[in-house]
Amino acid sequence: MLIEGIRQEFDFDAAGRGMFELAEALYPICRSITGNGVRQTLDILRQHVPLSVHEIPSGTDVLDWTVPREWNIRDAWIEGPGGERIVDFRDSNLHVVSYSIPVRRRMTLSELRPHLFTVPEQPGVIPYRTSYYKEDWGFCLPHRQMEQLADGEYEVCIDSSLEKGSLTYGELLIPGKCREEILISCHLCHPSLANDNLSGMTVATWLARTLATEQLRYSYRFLFIPGTIGSITWLARNEDRTPLIYSGLVLTCVGDRGAFTYKRSRRGDAPIDRAMRHLVERGNRGRLVEFSPYGYDERQYCSPGFNLPVGCLMRTEHGKFPEYHTSADNLEFLSGESLAGTLELCLRAVGILERDTHYRNLAPKGEPQLGRRGLYGSTGGTGIAHENLALLWVLNYSDGEHSLLEIAEKADMEFAVVSRAADRLRAAGLLEDAAAISEPHHQVEAATR
Amino acid sequence: MLIEGIRQEFDFDAAGRGMFELAEALYPICRSITGNGVRQTLDILRQHVPLSVHEIPSGTDVLDWTVPREWNIRDAWIEGPGGERIVDFRDSNLHVVSYSIPVRRRMTLSELRPHLFTVPEQPGVIPYRTSYYKEDWGFCLPHRQMEQLADGEYEVCIDSSLEKGSLTYGELLIPGKCREEILISCHLCHPSLANDNLSGMTVATWLARTLATEQLRYSYRFLFIPGTIGSITWLARNEDRTPLIYSGLVLTCVGDRGAFTYKRSRRGDAPIDRAMRHLVERGNRGRLVEFSPYGYDERQYCSPGFNLPVGCLMRTEHGKFPEYHTSADNLEFLSGESLAGTLELCLRAVGILERDTHYRNLAPKGEPQLGRRGLYGSTGGTGIAHENLALLWVLNYSDGEHSLLEIAEKADMEFAVVSRAADRLRAAGLLEDAAAISEPHHQVEAATR
Amino acid sequence: MLIEGIRQEFDFDAAGRGMFELAEALYPICRSITGNGVRQTLDILRQHVPLSVHEIPSGTDVLDWTVPREWNIRDAWIEGPGGERIVDFRDSNLHVVSYSIPVRRRMTLSELRPHLFTVPEQPGVIPYRTSYYKEDWGFCLPHRQMEQLADGEYEVCIDSSLEKGSLTYGELLIPGKCREEILISCHLCHPSLANDNLSGMTVATWLARTLATEQLRYSYRFLFIPGTIGSITWLARNEDRTPLIYSGLVLTCVGDRGAFTYKRSRRGDAPIDRAMRHLVERGNRGRLVEFSPYGYDERQYCSPGFNLPVGCLMRTEHGKFPEYHTSADNLEFLSGESLAGTLELCLRAVGILERDTHYRNLAPKGEPQLGRRGLYGSTGGTGIAHENLALLWVLNYSDGEHSLLEIAEKADMEFAVVSRAADRLRAAGLLEDAAAISEPHHQVEAATR
Repeated sequence: MLIEGIRQEFDFDAAGRGMFELAEALYPICRSITGNGVRQTLDILRQHVPLSVHEIPSGTDVLDWTVPREWNIRDAWIEGPGGERIVDFRDSNLHVVSYSIPVRRRMTLSELRPHLFTVPEQPGVIPYRTSYYKEDWGFCLPHRQMEQLADGEYEVCIDSSLEKGSLTYGELLIPGKCREEILISCHLCHPSLANDNLSGMTVATWLARTLATEQLRYSYRFLFIPGTIGSITWLARNEDRTPLIYSGLVLTCVGDRGAFTYKRSRRGDAPIDRAMRHLVERGNRGRLVEFSPYGYDERQYCSPGFNLPVGCLMRTEHGKFPEYHTSADNLEFLSGESLAGTLELCLRAVGILERDTHYRNLAPKGEPQLGRRGLYGSTGGTGIAHENLALLWVLNYSDGEHSLLEIAEKADMEFAVVSRAADRLRAAGLLEDAAAISEPHHQVEAATR
Repeated sequence: MLIEGIRQEFDFDAAGRGMFELAEALYPICRSITGNGVRQTLDILRQHVPLSVHEIPSGTDVLDWTVPREWNIRDAWIEGPGGERIVDFRDSNLHVVSYSIPVRRRMTLSELRPHLFTVPEQPGVIPYRTSYYKEDWGFCLPHRQMEQLADGEYEVCIDSSLEKGSLTYGELLIPGKCREEILISCHLCHPSLANDNLSGMTVATWLARTLATEQLRYSYRFLFIPGTIGSITWLARNEDRTPLIYSGLVLTCVGDRGAFTYKRSRRGDAPIDRAMRHLVERGNRGRLVEFSPYGYDERQYCSPGFNLPVGCLMRTEHGKFPEYHTSADNLEFLSGESLAGTLELCLRAVGILERDTHYRNLAPKGEPQLGRRGLYGSTGGTGIAHENLALLWVLNYSDGEHSLLEIAEKADMEFAVVSRAADRLRAAGLLEDAAAISEPHHQVEAATR
Repeated sequence: MLIEGIRQEFDFDAAGRGMFELAEALYPICRSITGNGVRQTLDILRQHVPLSVHEIPSGTDVLDWTVPREWNIRDAWIEGPGGERIVDFRDSNLHVVSYSIPVRRRMTLSELRPHLFTVPEQPGVIPYRTSYYKEDWGFCLPHRQMEQLADGEYEVCIDSSLEKGSLTYGELLIPGKCREEILISCHLCHPSLANDNLSGMTVATWLARTLATEQLRYSYRFLFIPGTIGSITWLARNEDRTPLIYSGLVLTCVGDRGAFTYKRSRRGDAPIDRAMRHLVERGNRGRLVEFSPYGYDERQYCSPGFNLPVGCLMRTEHGKFPEYHTSADNLEFLSGESLAGTLELCLRAVGILERDTHYRNLAPKGEPQLGRRGLYGSTGGTGIAHENLALLWVLNYSDGEHSLLEIAEKADMEFAVVSRAADRLRAAGLLEDAAAISEPHHQVEAATR
């Protein structure tokens, strides 16, 4: 079973290097919520995992929204009064406001100014700005550079197109024993920003690669989608599937060197919330924050009409690191070790989701005599070994009402220890699976796949 | 609507001055639980608000009690051995134990002593004492003065009467759209004590004046009553009305310079409890304490046979300021600014009670596209404005189960900000009132008034 | 009634001396889970309380276990290469591993070593070890002594027997007005160890002696049993009685000088849990810990098939004092004063269990007029006496939903104060017993005893 061998067998160093190399390959591409950058990105990801690629035509109604026209860009620049190229899209795709309409004009500096975006507090960085839903154009540049612009005539060029086309996203289903699904979602719409969200894309890719080789209880659905409009589009097209979502996770900003931040689902006690509580908070690897309706695609999954049991995993929270949405969120801000640590946390969480269940103690009156079953030391009077103590916890609370994870929390023990104790007790005939009673959603088994 | 304009339009400085002047006018009157002092007090209050005055005859059975005989006093003094007047009711009405029976006698100091009351720990102040339900008489004086009394013969005179008459109280109903009532109660039975309770009487008067000019959802009932026997009398005569009390507030000791103390109703989660939690605790303006069966008329409203959703607002808690029940609780202890601050808090609380409701998001699947409705900025990539964040909170939690106040608490935002967001969303057609479903008590509308 | 007079009339000093003397008498006996040591122990206890003694034959099936063969020991020693007796059972019965099979052999030191047990961290003490369920033999000795053993030939002798016989335990039922029982259980299977558990045995004995002279509401069942197998045996033989157990307590390690540790029952809110919360935590006499399935016989009483409302009282927790399970847990480690303090706590807990009930305020609308019933001072304006405040708390919360203990907790008052207030109110006709409604289990009265 999945999680048991991870620490021993899985080469997290190699995984970290692999994810970082993937991030390097994806970094230069100019992505937006639609367009060829998304397609190039999915092409590269498909070298690692067999994604299906969906193309949804512009103008399609999706919930309260409409799929926008497709945006593509070939080139963009500003030439100064002296003819020198002062801003060039080829230096950084962040220089152009995403979804800028095409423009080619000469204008004074004061005409140009309303189209220039900077971060005065961080004068050396290029900010990331978008204008998806209002036709406009603009350039982003370091504040320091903007301040030095001389009066005179400027020429601006944005060689872009905004035309009927489609919205593109990638999807992968790894089937498990049950039809219930774990949803893993990451946004792929940002241009050359590393933590936001090459980090999520690379971890999701490696997670899918790893799970694809396992015998799984749940099915796993991976989505690589443009933020907001992508999850809205997927929800609109898959509304009937949403009741099958047992739990899920949005992955974003998971490659920096900070501790973990796990944001609970709107429900607050979804299976993934409880797993992350155990791993992140009890494991002293970061902190949990309550759901709020601002952030990434959990906003859509957790809208009140869906209220899906989906949380969001980050390291440093979006907006709380100064590199956020600037050119400083580059490959140097990313760490292969951090990516590997996130992958490991995700695999552990999957391990809990996969193995957490309700058991029933078959000898519930008094303690069963563990000694004669070889489950307990024979010399009395000394203390008790940690793994034997786990046996007592599992026996005492396997009353059909407490799941293994709940027992681990009560005992303040690692889930893995409690899970191994359950395996030993089951092998000794002292425990039976009570899931058929307590987890009715598991009765629906995969039928037609 | 009431609360919106308060900060801008309402002149709290003027209100503070007005309340203080009213307190000055009421201060000299010798009030008790019955008698002409109460009538004079109500006459002055009626210059500000159209109170009805009720007279309940002595001997009337009210719950477990009986309306006592009416007490009035004209004069009282003690003359010392040398004939000098050493204690004089005309100097301070606190000198006489309230409800003292008439007496005119000569006696030795040792005979007199059991009838003298002082505060040894505060040798300079006159204490406030009563003997409502046991026939007795007594004088209160500074401990320092009592210690200097020489042996010899004293003459005491209390020119009072204790006769069949009536218990007097004032009442005002300001009708709103629904029959459900908010009860505002204050005691008017103390003689020259300022914080306890000219403060409550003046704030209640100004609150009534202000609400009388508003379009209100709830009806507001104001009671100006003698402590304990007054609320018991009102409850006895209005038992059938008590189910209409949606929430309520006892106002007492609200004019000193301390922070607020709000004592919860016995229920603990009455509407007024939640409003005060938000304003006082979240607003960092004081603290909340749990209900206890000792204090003011909330003792009666919250007795188990009624258990009304009524709390008690104070600044410094009764008994916790040294001036309490002594001559030091005088007009100098009172602050017009504090009275104005209390009025402002009460108006804000009323604003929450009036505006808190359950809404339903009409586009609950995914976020509705706020941008095309002009509710959201068009440039993406930056953070989110506080008022736009409020839109997201209201949309996400307007599922019919969370009221606006609950949403404000979850979002850790001011109620007013969340309430404005709801107004904007309602105007955009994204929100409907779910109150008909979740607040059945509001279905009963005013019919015959 | 029991608890009222305790502080005044009960001589806790004498009780402490008496319990300590009993511990001295019991200390030398070599007890185990079966055998004559248990019988001698019960013989001595029967000089104080009329215990019934039960003998359960070896081989009897009890739940998942079987009553083991009976073990007895007459002598044991090790002689060194020079013929000197280096370990002698007559010096300390801890020297022999309990349940050692008979042996008489000569062997080398390296053959002997696997049969020697020490505590390297505490080189001066003899550890306590057992081998109940695996046939083996061994000696326990100070580590310091073992390190000095010279090579050469040793002679070992254990003159023990392990034969068909019986398991012995003591039981006492003190009948009360109802059939519901309070279970008091202590283990009597340890040899010369004082705190573990002569302390529990002596306190249980004195508690039984005291309760035997009282008019009791509940019946009290005392068990003096070998650990684990004893409670399992009792449960197996009395399964049909267990639903009558209203609450209960395991007494162990209650004679050292530490503060109290009360371990909650598995239910967490059993009557004894609430009483101990009040006495230990509110009374600032120690701390409460949550239930865990490791410890003493509460493991069996609280196994999921029984889940009895039984907690465990200790002073310093087992395993958390260095003397635990070593020869340092001797009479000097015990304090008569500590034993007396534990007895006093148990009597107070009994007092709460006996007197906690639900009352109904017969004048629930408003406060009843206490003054005319002589329950309240006549001079108003001063503060309120603590005992009068208790009257108000009892009146306000005697709504049939709050028990006296719950009222004491809400009021943050001692149970005894609240209980006295209830007595005064009942005498005044203001309170009636609501138990028939709220505590259905009390309707079953003792019928056939």
